[in-house]
Amino acid sequence: MQQPNIIPPRSGVSFILRQGQQLKVYDIEGEQVSDFICYNLHDKAEYLSSGRTIDYADTIFLTKGHPFYSNRSNVMFHMVEDTVGRHDFLLTPCSADTFRIIYGHTQPHRGCFGNLCEALKEYGIRPDEIPVCFNIFMHVAVDGDTGKIAVRPPKSKAGDYVILEAHMDLIVGMTACSAEMSNNYAFKPIGYEILNANE
Amino acid sequence: MQQPNIIPPRSGVSFILRQGQQLKVYDIEGEQVSDFICYNLHDKAEYLSSGRTIDYADTIFLTKGHPFYSNRSNVMFHMVEDTVGRHDFLLTPCSADTFRIIYGHTQPHRGCFGNLCEALKEYGIRPDEIPVCFNIFMHVAVDGDTGKIAVRPPKSKAGDYVILEAHMDLIVGMTACSAEMSNNYAFKPIGYEILNANE
Repeated sequence: MQQPNIIPPRSGVSFILRQGQQLKVYDIEGEQVSDFICYNLHDKAEYLSSGRTIDYADTIFLTKGHPFYSNRSNVMFHMVEDTVGRHDFLLTPCSADTFRIIYGHTQPHRGCFGNLCEALKEYGIRPDEIPVCFNIFMHVAVDGDTGKIAVRPPKSKAGDYVILEAHMDLIVGMTACSAEMSNNYAFKPIGYEILNANE
Repeated sequence: MQQPNIIPPRSGVSFILRQGQQLKVYDIEGEQVSDFICYNLHDKAEYLSSGRTIDYADTIFLTKGHPFYSNRSNVMFHMVEDTVGRHDFLLTPCSADTFRIIYGHTQPHRGCFGNLCEALKEYGIRPDEIPVCFNIFMHVAVDGDTGKIAVRPPKSKAGDYVILEAHMDLIVGMTACSAEMSNNYAFKPIGYEILNANE
């Protein structure tokens, strides 16, 4: 078997995923989160939209079978497999501001947001163009009565994965998450692999 | 008393709200929704962010007292008064695609999205720059166990209102919502007023 690519703890990557290709995202050690965002390779103003996707799926918990829509209501990819069944699509990536505001850090890490900014620079994506991300394996509990949210340890165990199949040529940005609460206070790597890269 | 400005049913407006000014948004007849979005007047790449706001507030139900953050984690405004207590910050504005995909309309209305595009054109805001909106008075039920969402009639009655106070100079876009489910199948107007416009 091809070895998956590794995203080291608290870092990010970007790459191109072509229409029809499948991306497998692994939680290598368990209880780790990967913030995921994508853009139409041929028109970067078209991006993954939480609002459109949740509206058309009628759920905030996206899983196997769900199509994921762009801000222009086009399907960007759909989820082919999901061994975990719980991810977040409400929150923006952790950032220096997150660590300052939520954690009270005085010399904050740049977070997944900073890592995505750095990784996506190669494709001309600016920081202001990074919206709400699809946070793979992130477990955000939502109280439907009060609206209260709580970030819990991911339900993913070592070896768990999702597979996403692209419906258009995509620029993808992905991280191994940097925020303590998201990954149960242990920063770990994330694995990924393009399953049919040579077809 | 100054008469409020009226947004006719299924239409939208844009205007400038200066730092320190308060915007009162009325549900004139009851059970109507207003999709609200704003941008930093002096740098339009800074916009209202659902993900940042929900993350810092620890709730998906924003109400009196909550600050609303931009994508750059700056406070754009805070909610000073709220006679309803239930609004939505998960969904994107209804659009021709919404009516096509969710309602099955073959000649769809342009929706709040189309109305915001038209209204914000004056300030050079492009359609791709309209993200998830703060949907005032919109009642979206969320099941915390299954993730399932359901659009319900607003809890607002005739005369209910919210007041928002700007923390920076803002370009504001607002609608009287166009989607049947959001307003209990009766399209109605929305009122608004800048309370301290002449200070």
